Amino acid sequence: MERRVSLITLGVTDLQRAREFYRRLGWQGQETEETVFIQAGALGLVLWSRAKLALDAGVPDERVPDGGPPGFGGMVLAHNVRSPAEVDEVMATARTAGATITCPAATTFYGGYAGYFADPDGHLWEIAHNPGFPLAPDGSITIPDFGPE
Amino acid sequence: MERRVSLITLGVTDLQRAREFYRRLGWQGQETEETVFIQAGALGLVLWSRAKLALDAGVPDERVPDGGPPGFGGMVLAHNVRSPAEVDEVMATARTAGATITCPAATTFYGGYAGYFADPDGHLWEIAHNPGFPLAPDGSITIPDFGPE
Repeated sequence: MERRVSLITLGVTDLQRAREFYRRLGWQGQETEETVFIQAGALGLVLWSRAKLALDAGVPDERVPDGGPPGFGGMVLAHNVRSPAEVDEVMATARTAGATITCPAATTFYGGYAGYFADPDGHLWEIAHNPGFPLAPDGSITIPDFGPE
Repeated sequence: MERRVSLITLGVTDLQRAREFYRRLGWQGQETEETVFIQAGALGLVLWSRAKLALDAGVPDERVPDGGPPGFGGMVLAHNVRSPAEVDEVMATARTAGATITCPAATTFYGGYAGYFADPDGHLWEIAHNPGFPLAPDGSITIPDFGPE
């Protein structure tokens, strides 16, 4: 697994409120299918429904009482790779390393192939092959043109 | 505020367990002062005590019952800038944009100057000037040499 973060997805409860907040910070993004993608250097910051993000990651969007397991933190790191086979390789490496597979790799609604795992503290990683999001040789990702920012 | 993420800090409950997990993924890091820094392209992934991270960010490390506010998600994004004055500028911009200032900017234990804010969904950002972590002209950050990985 290369040392790269491709996307940071923030789960939000009101997409337009979040979009407007980041716009005021100077972080304009493109919206498509109720998702906002913001190019930030070599990676992308993504704003997406918190409930959908939890569902996609295969974890309950629950907050448990103090002292319990951490629950869904509302943020997911994505590591994009160059082929479906590479997704399987990284998922296998993570399982061997002690990750909890929260969602086995499968074809995604956007025509890619991705799976999710949780690290020992419950932090979620999505390992994804997304043909629509090109990766440069150095691993940096470019958000495609979805329309005006 | 430039569109850059400098550090992603994962709050962990057992630093050595987390360090070993990421090492098995191929993400070796350097440990200094009970913190692990892993260079990942233009940014750094950081492993640090979840309790200390919450304390540093000025938020309670609590999990509230379902239906309550999201609580501490256990992950913090850092945006490093080139001067203390720029920290103040970004914090002011964030406040105007509707952020909740969870920890006003102040001198830090590592000799820098930093503050934290929460976005409308509670996602935490640290705005930091850290003279020990050089920023390249393109904003990428380089973890200094703390010793062997």
